[in-house]
Amino acid sequence: MTTSASPVTITATDADDQPDRTPELEALYRGFESELLIPLWTEIGDLMPPSPRSKAVPHLWRWGNLIPLATEAGELVPVGRGGERRAIALANPGLGGRPFATPTLWAAIQYLNPGEDAPVHRHTQNAFRFVVEGEGVWTVVNGDPVAMRRGDFLPQAGWHWHGHHNRTDRPMAWIDGLDIPFQYAVESTFFEFGPDEVETREAPERSRSERLWAHPGLRPLTQLTPTPATPLLAYRWEYTDHALREQLALEAEGYSATVEPGHAAVRYTNPTTGGDVMPTLRTEFHRLAPDTATAPIREVGSSVYQVFDGTGEASVGEHSWEVERGDLFVVPSWQPLALTTDTGLDLFRFSDTPIFERLHQHRTSTEATQ
Amino acid sequence: MTTSASPVTITATDADDQPDRTPELEALYRGFESELLIPLWTEIGDLMPPSPRSKAVPHLWRWGNLIPLATEAGELVPVGRGGERRAIALANPGLGGRPFATPTLWAAIQYLNPGEDAPVHRHTQNAFRFVVEGEGVWTVVNGDPVAMRRGDFLPQAGWHWHGHHNRTDRPMAWIDGLDIPFQYAVESTFFEFGPDEVETREAPERSRSERLWAHPGLRPLTQLTPTPATPLLAYRWEYTDHALREQLALEAEGYSATVEPGHAAVRYTNPTTGGDVMPTLRTEFHRLAPDTATAPIREVGSSVYQVFDGTGEASVGEHSWEVERGDLFVVPSWQPLALTTDTGLDLFRFSDTPIFERLHQHRTSTEATQ
Amino acid sequence: MTTSASPVTITATDADDQPDRTPELEALYRGFESELLIPLWTEIGDLMPPSPRSKAVPHLWRWGNLIPLATEAGELVPVGRGGERRAIALANPGLGGRPFATPTLWAAIQYLNPGEDAPVHRHTQNAFRFVVEGEGVWTVVNGDPVAMRRGDFLPQAGWHWHGHHNRTDRPMAWIDGLDIPFQYAVESTFFEFGPDEVETREAPERSRSERLWAHPGLRPLTQLTPTPATPLLAYRWEYTDHALREQLALEAEGYSATVEPGHAAVRYTNPTTGGDVMPTLRTEFHRLAPDTATAPIREVGSSVYQVFDGTGEASVGEHSWEVERGDLFVVPSWQPLALTTDTGLDLFRFSDTPIFERLHQHRTSTEATQ
Amino acid sequence: MTTSASPVTITATDADDQPDRTPELEALYRGFESELLIPLWTEIGDLMPPSPRSKAVPHLWRWGNLIPLATEAGELVPVGRGGERRAIALANPGLGGRPFATPTLWAAIQYLNPGEDAPVHRHTQNAFRFVVEGEGVWTVVNGDPVAMRRGDFLPQAGWHWHGHHNRTDRPMAWIDGLDIPFQYAVESTFFEFGPDEVETREAPERSRSERLWAHPGLRPLTQLTPTPATPLLAYRWEYTDHALREQLALEAEGYSATVEPGHAAVRYTNPTTGGDVMPTLRTEFHRLAPDTATAPIREVGSSVYQVFDGTGEASVGEHSWEVERGDLFVVPSWQPLALTTDTGLDLFRFSDTPIFERLHQHRTSTEATQ
Repeated sequence: MTTSASPVTITATDADDQPDRTPELEALYRGFESELLIPLWTEIGDLMPPSPRSKAVPHLWRWGNLIPLATEAGELVPVGRGGERRAIALANPGLGGRPFATPTLWAAIQYLNPGEDAPVHRHTQNAFRFVVEGEGVWTVVNGDPVAMRRGDFLPQAGWHWHGHHNRTDRPMAWIDGLDIPFQYAVESTFFEFGPDEVETREAPERSRSERLWAHPGLRPLTQLTPTPATPLLAYRWEYTDHALREQLALEAEGYSATVEPGHAAVRYTNPTTGGDVMPTLRTEFHRLAPDTATAPIREVGSSVYQVFDGTGEASVGEHSWEVERGDLFVVPSWQPLALTTDTGLDLFRFSDTPIFERLHQHRTSTEATQ
Repeated sequence: MTTSASPVTITATDADDQPDRTPELEALYRGFESELLIPLWTEIGDLMPPSPRSKAVPHLWRWGNLIPLATEAGELVPVGRGGERRAIALANPGLGGRPFATPTLWAAIQYLNPGEDAPVHRHTQNAFRFVVEGEGVWTVVNGDPVAMRRGDFLPQAGWHWHGHHNRTDRPMAWIDGLDIPFQYAVESTFFEFGPDEVETREAPERSRSERLWAHPGLRPLTQLTPTPATPLLAYRWEYTDHALREQLALEAEGYSATVEPGHAAVRYTNPTTGGDVMPTLRTEFHRLAPDTATAPIREVGSSVYQVFDGTGEASVGEHSWEVERGDLFVVPSWQPLALTTDTGLDLFRFSDTPIFERLHQHRTSTEATQ
Repeated sequence: MTTSASPVTITATDADDQPDRTPELEALYRGFESELLIPLWTEIGDLMPPSPRSKAVPHLWRWGNLIPLATEAGELVPVGRGGERRAIALANPGLGGRPFATPTLWAAIQYLNPGEDAPVHRHTQNAFRFVVEGEGVWTVVNGDPVAMRRGDFLPQAGWHWHGHHNRTDRPMAWIDGLDIPFQYAVESTFFEFGPDEVETREAPERSRSERLWAHPGLRPLTQLTPTPATPLLAYRWEYTDHALREQLALEAEGYSATVEPGHAAVRYTNPTTGGDVMPTLRTEFHRLAPDTATAPIREVGSSVYQVFDGTGEASVGEHSWEVERGDLFVVPSWQPLALTTDTGLDLFRFSDTPIFERLHQHRTSTEATQ
Repeated sequence: MTTSASPVTITATDADDQPDRTPELEALYRGFESELLIPLWTEIGDLMPPSPRSKAVPHLWRWGNLIPLATEAGELVPVGRGGERRAIALANPGLGGRPFATPTLWAAIQYLNPGEDAPVHRHTQNAFRFVVEGEGVWTVVNGDPVAMRRGDFLPQAGWHWHGHHNRTDRPMAWIDGLDIPFQYAVESTFFEFGPDEVETREAPERSRSERLWAHPGLRPLTQLTPTPATPLLAYRWEYTDHALREQLALEAEGYSATVEPGHAAVRYTNPTTGGDVMPTLRTEFHRLAPDTATAPIREVGSSVYQVFDGTGEASVGEHSWEVERGDLFVVPSWQPLALTTDTGLDLFRFSDTPIFERLHQHRTSTEATQ
């Protein structure tokens, strides 16, 4: 292998902490290159910063801009085997042109025309849908048809068969969240095709999974083993909304119930463990009462937020945006987040936090600076 | 110490597997006694049977007999500090006259007159209430008033402060379940007095614990650490009934949802773990559709059942009873249980199973004989 | 059922906290008795004391008294099928003449003559052997012959086949510890006979289990699943002694390594989990340097100690004894324990603590009074 | 933002599964780009392959080539604050010129001259050292000096302070393994400088951690809480070698002890849990007896092997190499690995498997093809 052909290049600099650039050192570096070696001392600044320095940047995508593009895609791009889904992903401008919202998270708007089927497949990536507006699509998970309606959160854990079909005469759009970038980075992804059409066109109000599992604190005696992902396939808006209203009501009555004043929040959990709905993804819903400001917080790992209702201001690192229904923004690792609202603000959030908790790498900080 | 004063007596027999009763052996046994020693070989048959041989016997208590006695107690016995509760316990005839339903479980009927307070205390024993009829009492747990109504299950984990008060002009009776005999046997019990009257006479429809926790799959962000016992203080009948109806409906539609044909069942669980509501007690609700017979089952550990509705036949070991609303019966360790009904049968059950599962001693058998 | 035949009797008293002994009350109590009911208010003082009030009493058994009786038993009592073991159990004088050291723990001296076999059986009770003197017996566990020598701790978890054989021309005695009283109280015991003679008369220095498992921090790739009980069948004295010497040496060098000044201690653990060797039994070895006194401690649950070497004073509750090699004493639940020594003291300890930890009932206190 | 300035570019193709490249579609794609969006349908083939398709390639680094380069670096490159370590990393030719052995693992040769100190620092990356030859360096971990000698495995878990010093008059080289690429990808890395020189120049034979923890199955009573990483800082060669010899001896005696015929293996474990030594890294030692061939195996996740002794052939995917002492090779995700040896082969291995097990993404396959 000649030096010039090596896939490795060592860029020596004259920085203070670097050895003198003598001819001998240059020869050594060429020797490293030809053996596919790279020294730590030229790379440590990038690899081992004092605190996480995310390549991802804070960014906002406006729902008002996404919907016309998704609609146009609905006219030009068919849904079918091969492309699999009419999903359009947020591409963080710091991540080299890849369709990644953050280094670990995928977030996309998906769009289905009246009468269309998104074909059945399964993959090791953990996934979910969240609906900010509309209804009429059923997602069929392992043969169980699950209605999708505004405010619903619909987990679809890795290796479950799933497809979707639109029962109405109107198109529907929603967001998908997955751990695609994470599994792509660590190279754990498997994928398998199922039928081209969903197994059933039944359209019940409640899925079988809800009929078995959506009873608070009750567990069917037929399913007593903990499962890595939640067996409950739909977390309905009426329950989420009710839980948040109660937290704010309890706060108003003088009881401890909210994260901080005016800030109610629930986590979607796996009823077989009490933990996160899926091994790599955390999902939550946050409600800020009118005239609320959250304390800034930093966290290891990244998040995507979607505004569900209301208006407010989101501040991430040095960026700040006025946000409204449907808007999506990302919070890169260790960037401080603060939210304020005059009118009230409802937010859906998903993050990669379970990865860090399970690997003992999670940290948070409420200090203003790192 | 003289031999005759020793608290230990060794009873030698002429059984085949015993050494010959020579004078030397008798002298040896007297020597053992004076040193407070007992040989294994005279005791092994009792201590180490081939399979569990419970001292408790299967027994049925008729609700129709309990209620008049409880009513009479309501007239003769005040509730107050010292006696603490107007609770009358089932005393299994095999357990030496102790107020123990089984070697590990306490079951009692408790009775409160209009306007009465059961004073506040706490203890390490895990407890719960289950209501087979009536309403009007609030149990106040750590200051949170919890309404009690027919069909409700109300856990009260060890070391929680609690008292009760009757808000109506009618008396109310319900059953208490605790692990008193277990904690008595292993000597782990602590007890502390609180105020003589409950902290609050508020009587809300829903307790604060329900407002925080009774939302399926949702967890308040303020309480993310798993707790040994459930933070949910009331499991309402409407949810239990709904879950059971859905299981039978799913079965009728051809899906797997029931324990066995016609037999729906739910377990009450701790939403922070997905496991049992309390570390020592398992609680479940079973519904048999009309014309259902369960397969006989044996289990290590003991259970108490209360008929909630309907009629049927309960068979435990060599006993068998026609049962109806309110009737209570016990299933000793390793005794086979079978249930049949023509008209339908609803049953509340509690057991000591978590003890055996956590200590890796649990076994079940569906074979007819041991 | 006539009242006089009832297995239940309610003893009414004139205590202040009891209802007046009117004829109506007496009639009510007779009604309770005939229905097999007992009120809480006559029993609560016994059932729910402010803190654990153990029926067991602190007691000391002298090795010097046990050995002659065991030797005599060796001459008079054969070992064989039926009696199974020549084991002589400590019978706590507070426990009603049962062969129970404490309400949960069995402790016995076992004795085997030259050439004898203790026949093979298995049971759900967890067991171990500890050797205070002698050698020459092999215990064969699931076919693996395990040498027994002074200072060795040899666990024998529930449902493992086991028998013993003496290879030498001298008798050998050791102690057995089991959870017999606990499993007897909760009625979970199964027992099965194996062959009358041990499967193998091989007498290797090291068992196969040690060859696979007795390597610090190393785990065979063939056995990666956690097991409820330790797969290591012998914890040799040389390792225990070495670990204790190092703790005291580190303390002398100024490092934190001991429980308290002069008090070294190790716990025997399951290498597949890092936890206790068996689900119900904790086992430890404690070494007090000369001129050491331990701080008094109370604990929920009970312990048995055996002096392995040295002399000292053991104080349990209001009892206090000079102790020496082989002496055994019990510490009932919540009784304070303190140890002092001028010459140094080595102690083996076993307890029922895992029961309480797994059921969230464990407490300790270093306060002098409850 | 103008389209041309967008960091996102969508490359449309004429593939069968892609929509027709009409002017409308091109306009839609430009619209996506200006809003920082990328469709799934152009990317799915790369993101969601049927099975893991690693960017990393199988590669071998020869110890005979590494040592001269490390020696030369020892002359030209000082060790000190800023560069921190004289470590030279393996750069997988498939990973874009980054110093990454695999997408998750860092492997480097580190070199320290006589009398040199590698300055103290700490970082969230989990690390270890493994010594294939030489001795004389002590690594000081949280103030505890740990000798490094041939065959020793020395874990250094995240956020432990550590530095090294060479006590001899000869240089020493060893390998470092870390999860740098993983933590770089998920952006969880923190780093902090400590003193420029190690805290102590003491050079004991055994570290304090070994004196507390390197006793099989024994745990100091002062440290009873499970810790995410092992408290044992040195796993000595004598124990590893002994464990492997015993497995092969047991196999020869007819017992089950090896992974497959002739293939002994141990995993280094955390004695507080029985699990992996660190949350993200698995480490093992494998010994193949002469004339042994392993069955091919695929695994999700990647490994690095270093030959410790002997010779043989390693086959990874379509690559195959004759290997000898010190040689290092990588096994990318889901590439089949097979090993053969005539003379016997000892191998150290580390992998990222705990990441996949904890996140429920682990799979293995012994089928020849995917």
